[in-house]
Amino acid sequence: MILIKIGGGKNINWEYIAQDIKDLKEQVIIVHGANAWMTEISQKLGLTERTIISPSGQTSRYTDNKTMDLITMVYSGLINKKIVATLQKFGLNAIGLAGVDGKLWLGKRKDVILSQEGTKIKTIRDSLTGNVISVNKKLIALLLGAGYIPVLTIPAITEKGEMINVDNDRAVALMVKDLNIKTVIMLFEAPGLLKDKDDEKLVIKTIKFDQLDKYIKNSEGRMRKKLLGMKEAFTHGLPKAYFGDGRIKSPITAALKGGGTIIS
Amino acid sequence: MILIKIGGGKNINWEYIAQDIKDLKEQVIIVHGANAWMTEISQKLGLTERTIISPSGQTSRYTDNKTMDLITMVYSGLINKKIVATLQKFGLNAIGLAGVDGKLWLGKRKDVILSQEGTKIKTIRDSLTGNVISVNKKLIALLLGAGYIPVLTIPAITEKGEMINVDNDRAVALMVKDLNIKTVIMLFEAPGLLKDKDDEKLVIKTIKFDQLDKYIKNSEGRMRKKLLGMKEAFTHGLPKAYFGDGRIKSPITAALKGGGTIIS
Repeated sequence: MILIKIGGGKNINWEYIAQDIKDLKEQVIIVHGANAWMTEISQKLGLTERTIISPSGQTSRYTDNKTMDLITMVYSGLINKKIVATLQKFGLNAIGLAGVDGKLWLGKRKDVILSQEGTKIKTIRDSLTGNVISVNKKLIALLLGAGYIPVLTIPAITEKGEMINVDNDRAVALMVKDLNIKTVIMLFEAPGLLKDKDDEKLVIKTIKFDQLDKYIKNSEGRMRKKLLGMKEAFTHGLPKAYFGDGRIKSPITAALKGGGTIIS
Repeated sequence: MILIKIGGGKNINWEYIAQDIKDLKEQVIIVHGANAWMTEISQKLGLTERTIISPSGQTSRYTDNKTMDLITMVYSGLINKKIVATLQKFGLNAIGLAGVDGKLWLGKRKDVILSQEGTKIKTIRDSLTGNVISVNKKLIALLLGAGYIPVLTIPAITEKGEMINVDNDRAVALMVKDLNIKTVIMLFEAPGLLKDKDDEKLVIKTIKFDQLDKYIKNSEGRMRKKLLGMKEAFTHGLPKAYFGDGRIKSPITAALKGGGTIIS
């Protein structure tokens, strides 16, 4: 079983991904983002996207009720259904679910988030963010067993029924643990992890687990989150992860062949 | 098994519905609309909602690509996940799906739609609209069998993988047929079908099937669609339908007790 994480960039080619999944003939689970569309639709609606930077340098989305509405619209609505329809077009029987559905991603809301603002540290209490603490394995098994491809995204849900924003990449890590997944492929808008983020020719071909911290330290933004997610996945027993280009033909096959970055 | 259709008005109280489902202890399937939010978010995005009126007086949404994007955002994203989260809050293990998911609502796109514009009849070819032609019974049975409450909405999908807008009420009718459903409850923002749509005191308590055409003729807009959907459901073997107030406490129990309109 392969877990494929599809990044939320607009240049990711879902048709190439769908064709490749069809050719692969392996059981897959898909987790996806939708960040670029989130930004676009926020702007169209006149909403300001706010980012929280933690004292340790972690960035996260400040998620008030309006932002949560937008997350459900863009992640679990617009992009989830577009990806599902693209897979269906290629004869792949996909089912799109958010973490709220069947408590697929049960999470815990953070009571307090610390935000570094200049030299001050502020306390934020109204952000609907948290972490996934368990995965509904039975539901995934039910769908896979019936031949469906689960296509998963945020939001997650708490025991109280609150929708919360969680880091998709950390949700992937928990799925690795709970579903005993051995192969993770992260597809995004670059040919792999780059030595210099502005030079696509400088792909780092392999990373050993014990080097991960160094790369995490030197990376930022979304790539940092992906690496942190992978670090967590490795501590849960993942032997190998593949970072690859989601814009090219046969993106999964290419990544598996070492076309991008292999972490082991 | 009860099929509950929740209308897309803002005054429908999902918490009351959830509490009532919990108390009922019956297997339920939910189909929902989201019309009022669709209108609100269309306006915020500066999109104009366009309606097609057929020569026979049927209204439908003109669904270009932008409208379809909005349908996925509002129906299968925002409102679907809010209803699911509300049910989860009451301990009901809901799963939200659109018709595209697992080809739950497989549809056929209309090649041509006729639009009455004044005295002229125009031909529209680019509207992503159609009808559901089959329901994925196995998927519904899989979810019900595992104890989930399916929460379903548009869009549907064609064999080619195109997302299409379909009439939720006619999808209900097809579900009645394919799932052999014997009880349908339609909840909306009125105490039942009204003699005068502006007077909530004048509820029509019972309608016999052979009177349906008369009521269809005298109704308009969304109520007309509901009645047309029910007419179709009756031809598929539905013995009884209950129209009730989705704004009140215990809305389902009240409707079943004849608090609204009973069609038989």
